[in-house]
Amino acid sequence: MSEERFMDKIIEVCLRRGFVSPTAEIYGGAGGFYDYGPLGTLMRQKIIDLWRQSFVLDEDDIYEITGSTLLPEAVFKASGHLDSFDDPLVQCEKCKSMFKADEVIKGVTGKSAEGLSLEELDKLIADNNINCPSCEGTLAKTRDFNLMFKTEIGSTGGINGYLRPETAQNIFINFKRLANFMRNKLPFGVAQMGSSFRNEISPRNFLIRGREFEQMEIEMFYDQDKENEHPRFHEVADIEINLVTREMQEKGWKEPLKLTTEAAVDEGVIPNQYLAYYLALETEMLKAIGIPEDDFWFRHMQDHEAPHYSAGNFDLEADLSLGHMEIVGNALRTDYDLQKHAKASKSTFELTMPDGKKVVPHVFEPSLGVGRIFYTVLEKCYREDERGWTWFQFPPTVAPLEVAVFPLMKKDGLAELAQEIHNELKDAGYLSFYDGSGKIGKRYARADEIGIPYCVTVDYDSIKEFSVTIRDRDTMKQIKLPIEDLEIAIGELMDGEADFEEFNQES
Amino acid sequence: MSEERFMDKIIEVCLRRGFVSPTAEIYGGAGGFYDYGPLGTLMRQKIIDLWRQSFVLDEDDIYEITGSTLLPEAVFKASGHLDSFDDPLVQCEKCKSMFKADEVIKGVTGKSAEGLSLEELDKLIADNNINCPSCEGTLAKTRDFNLMFKTEIGSTGGINGYLRPETAQNIFINFKRLANFMRNKLPFGVAQMGSSFRNEISPRNFLIRGREFEQMEIEMFYDQDKENEHPRFHEVADIEINLVTREMQEKGWKEPLKLTTEAAVDEGVIPNQYLAYYLALETEMLKAIGIPEDDFWFRHMQDHEAPHYSAGNFDLEADLSLGHMEIVGNALRTDYDLQKHAKASKSTFELTMPDGKKVVPHVFEPSLGVGRIFYTVLEKCYREDERGWTWFQFPPTVAPLEVAVFPLMKKDGLAELAQEIHNELKDAGYLSFYDGSGKIGKRYARADEIGIPYCVTVDYDSIKEFSVTIRDRDTMKQIKLPIEDLEIAIGELMDGEADFEEFNQES
Repeated sequence: MSEERFMDKIIEVCLRRGFVSPTAEIYGGAGGFYDYGPLGTLMRQKIIDLWRQSFVLDEDDIYEITGSTLLPEAVFKASGHLDSFDDPLVQCEKCKSMFKADEVIKGVTGKSAEGLSLEELDKLIADNNINCPSCEGTLAKTRDFNLMFKTEIGSTGGINGYLRPETAQNIFINFKRLANFMRNKLPFGVAQMGSSFRNEISPRNFLIRGREFEQMEIEMFYDQDKENEHPRFHEVADIEINLVTREMQEKGWKEPLKLTTEAAVDEGVIPNQYLAYYLALETEMLKAIGIPEDDFWFRHMQDHEAPHYSAGNFDLEADLSLGHMEIVGNALRTDYDLQKHAKASKSTFELTMPDGKKVVPHVFEPSLGVGRIFYTVLEKCYREDERGWTWFQFPPTVAPLEVAVFPLMKKDGLAELAQEIHNELKDAGYLSFYDGSGKIGKRYARADEIGIPYCVTVDYDSIKEFSVTIRDRDTMKQIKLPIEDLEIAIGELMDGEADFEEFNQES
Repeated sequence: MSEERFMDKIIEVCLRRGFVSPTAEIYGGAGGFYDYGPLGTLMRQKIIDLWRQSFVLDEDDIYEITGSTLLPEAVFKASGHLDSFDDPLVQCEKCKSMFKADEVIKGVTGKSAEGLSLEELDKLIADNNINCPSCEGTLAKTRDFNLMFKTEIGSTGGINGYLRPETAQNIFINFKRLANFMRNKLPFGVAQMGSSFRNEISPRNFLIRGREFEQMEIEMFYDQDKENEHPRFHEVADIEINLVTREMQEKGWKEPLKLTTEAAVDEGVIPNQYLAYYLALETEMLKAIGIPEDDFWFRHMQDHEAPHYSAGNFDLEADLSLGHMEIVGNALRTDYDLQKHAKASKSTFELTMPDGKKVVPHVFEPSLGVGRIFYTVLEKCYREDERGWTWFQFPPTVAPLEVAVFPLMKKDGLAELAQEIHNELKDAGYLSFYDGSGKIGKRYARADEIGIPYCVTVDYDSIKEFSVTIRDRDTMKQIKLPIEDLEIAIGELMDGEADFEEFNQES
């Protein structure tokens, strides 16, 4: 109960301060749809930019594409989504409510029933005498419900179209053109960031399980015979990652296993270098955006949790107030998708290697949920103290606003000078916010609540001796420095190249 | 005919070099859906970033939001889209083909029939003896076809959902929270960039009229009594824009009217400062991305072309090989949308001004089509010469790749040094491309074809005397300079702070 209350606190700040709110809220919403507000959009963009820089632009053999979100039926017929992208649904015969069968079972037995067949689910419901969670009525037999949103493309007699349930398919169906762009050499990767849609039976937990959500994905294509020859693996070999093996899950575990990526591959804990490389990149990214490294790990999924074609999935799970939640999926998709589309489109997706060998590449896919990462940052950075103040201790890497500039008073030219300083900070590329009204303490509180790392106050000394005061959000310490040094100081503070103590000694 | 061929040339390069290709091409596509490939995505992102910087981040009172694309029916019932977002459709009784009625009429009479009633369209078809353009069969009566894609949200007995046909509605339905975020002061603006969907009867002309497309929009909210008090209008007052007035359209026109924004407002050619401010920003942005200023203008739409609630729309039209095409829409939407949603949600969207006056803001909306701007850049930058070479003369602001680095040979350490230089350029933030194979002339041609402004060649002098050669795409001139000066030189060349002649004199 207290756990639920924690998420509610986050949601309350999100609504009130412009981070996130339910879509079409004035019409009662639609369940599982959220809009990022002004601050949410700034923070979301920073998360996307960080991913794009470190996962895509920093690499030589990875390029991003931007595919349509509405796709014709042929794509999902081939991919298998039309036949099998289902959730088992159970309906109460009395009150007609719908539930996900595995959730109803887990609610009573406490055990995961994910991936079981309809028959197995029905048996568990019968064996455990499970009734409707709402009204205690009898539950009908479970049946499959396809999670894709369907529509029609064209005016009359058009074709069926579906909103993509994952971004990945755009990449697979473009494989030939993409391989050609990469001169048919392996390995190469194709990235995509965009919306996916799943008509969840019970969307819940705010941004964690919505019906419209964003993914940042890469499909990394490689020769399976060279799965341990990732060209940049040496750069991440020493990075330590947290792991939860299948064995640990069977025995019960308290602390994840800490291994370098190199050791994890050598010891067979992680199946190959491609997977390990991305677990390192994800670890670095999450740490950089304020998620403590002890609060997340990679769990080797059980066979029944992963798709049948998977050669091993490692979910990045975060320790949230709601429990352990999947934030990032890491999937060894093998050559399953390419083979399916090659067959359905009657083409071949084989590439010829320099030595003449023909290869249908295997695929590793790191899939980062934008909303899930966003929410994790909010929860991990949320702070409250005995004054009753709450604030987000965002690192500057994700803080939606980086500096706030306040004139102590509006009169005597202070407002004009503060506005000028604000404009200069913006011109220098900082996300600066000008706040000209209210008691200074209240302005600090407002800035802290939305996680602005630094507040700059313009007072009478600013006019007399050209100095301003910078206040640090986390320590509430203040330093005074010449206006002309402000821009560089803010930059150094944000980059962690300087700290407050140093500036105080200098001045 | 020759005009169509020009677009086909562009499409051919787009397909072959990874700019854009039809969605689900291997399954025959779906009509009106396109994917941006690796180079297309880089260029698209630059266009979006430029818009975001100059339309959003540079302003103090404009923030961006990111709303859901799938919205519940209540939104479009209130907005009017459910009842009236229709295209008049006419079907051939013989071959059953569907056509947009106004297009069939324009095809025969040469005159625009946009915005006419079904009765008026039927009368024109009868009066002009118009038959099916495919088979000469008789055309049935015209009827309305709603252009929204419909789906169902929820498992059974769910609610209807529609893919948004414009991004704007997310902003209107969030108005209260957004106004609150802006402390209920006017003016303020809310921006959004994202996909919209229209089930066009006849999608055509590549990226110009697709079924899924992206918009970069702002809804600017202001007090109609202060429509000529835009706070930053003085900054754009002297910018000259090209205009086509309604009067000019009636009389026939050859050259657009050139006026400063200030003169255009003073003379009543443009209805207010909010509209004029954005026509200036759009002019500046289009010029910055390589569209010659004589090739576009703002046309005051005729009454029947604009929505009935509009207080004046000004389309930005570009002179393309296909004819004059709308690239950007500029709409004075009045308080129509806010009033509709206030009524339907039984709330009030009135703000109280400092003097106590109650105001439902008016709205000005500049709506930039990402795909349309993208295509216009391609067409305006396309070049071919007597050698048979074709290239894109992209300015560095939109060039998908900015520098290519070539080792003259792979041996003798040239490849390693070239790779090192390439990495350093990437670290410095340039979009650099390493190309290690093929004859040097062929590598230049490949780089030119995709519009890379500068090629850097690493040869034996690079090893002997630490120099490299930069080649300019447009003049094919070459300069030699020390490796250590390369990074700064590329920066200065890209920013236009230096030109080739200068470097030659220096060295």
